[in-house]
Amino acid sequence: MPATLRFWFEFASPYSWLAAMRIEAEAARRGVTLAWQPFLLGPIFADRDWSTSPFVLYPDKGRYMWRDVERQAAKYGLTLRRPDRTPGGIFPQNGLLAARLCLVGLDEGWGEGFARAAFAAAFSEGHDISRQDVLAPLVAAQGAEPEAALTAATASATKARLRAAVEEARRLHIFGAPSFTVGSELFWGNDRLEDALDYAATT
Amino acid sequence: MPATLRFWFEFASPYSWLAAMRIEAEAARRGVTLAWQPFLLGPIFADRDWSTSPFVLYPDKGRYMWRDVERQAAKYGLTLRRPDRTPGGIFPQNGLLAARLCLVGLDEGWGEGFARAAFAAAFSEGHDISRQDVLAPLVAAQGAEPEAALTAATASATKARLRAAVEEARRLHIFGAPSFTVGSELFWGNDRLEDALDYAATT
Repeated sequence: MPATLRFWFEFASPYSWLAAMRIEAEAARRGVTLAWQPFLLGPIFADRDWSTSPFVLYPDKGRYMWRDVERQAAKYGLTLRRPDRTPGGIFPQNGLLAARLCLVGLDEGWGEGFARAAFAAAFSEGHDISRQDVLAPLVAAQGAEPEAALTAATASATKARLRAAVEEARRLHIFGAPSFTVGSELFWGNDRLEDALDYAATT
Repeated sequence: MPATLRFWFEFASPYSWLAAMRIEAEAARRGVTLAWQPFLLGPIFADRDWSTSPFVLYPDKGRYMWRDVERQAAKYGLTLRRPDRTPGGIFPQNGLLAARLCLVGLDEGWGEGFARAAFAAAFSEGHDISRQDVLAPLVAAQGAEPEAALTAATASATKARLRAAVEEARRLHIFGAPSFTVGSELFWGNDRLEDALDYAATT
């Protein structure tokens, strides 16, 4: 029986977006079960004394990343709208509320659909996903009740779960997103999605 | 007519090794002409105030890199012997002399073969490629005269050419290795070898 693959993603991460939009089809093709796992890169980057994304700290790397993501997105049939080129937009966006809502949604069966909708809002539609009024309609579109979800998302138990996810990421030596884990075997980056699923399928 | 693809590599770089061992076959398959271009990452990293490879500066990233390179190498049928796990070995190795010799060899038609041999010495055979007595037999194995090649490699004109290559890498916004360029279009990493060649083939 194939192993479960854990999909670690951060809502501010462009390569997490690319992986989120194609992982279900690739997993289904191999009969691999997925466990979607939102987490935050900010605390992981802070461990390295990075105040923000390396794509901001190192301009050549950032310049390249956007060109690369644009090329990869085109290959997958996705449209990129750079969040830092929308009116008032920034990169990286603050994915905290989206991550907490996603945890609530995963318990209730709408987390994966919400995650894809939030990624599309952030990277294709030019929306600010730190805003409640942007995220609430995405919750509603999954058939859930936005007000209850927002209350649950900001409850201390949910906050603690997200902090625990970051702790677990550290223990697994995760340093970027997306990451994929099968037990302690780690794969990093959208480019390793197929390898990670193949590994899970044969483990 | 397909465009020429420039292959930017650094002898200390594990992913440059992976690309060097397979680029000729992938280019031939697409009818793309290659221009092998040795350069140095040290000065590029120094621009970021990095004193050494990020794989050393960030242990989680380094730990992952070796596991990833091992998995990728197995996929390509290559054997990895970590340079930092051979007696007296270190990572990153000093690729300066190998890069200078390679420039001489590219003028004389044996640079590509020498590059593959030096990469194999560094990453499969556990040799210290900063040493003249390690590199000289690799030059001889290409049918060239080691003493003349070493003299040419350390001539001021060759040193200047390597410095100029680093300057050109900076102008092209290259920040890691391997990189591939077609005009000003940049692709970074062994994972982008196929995309870069496809781009060159249709440009």
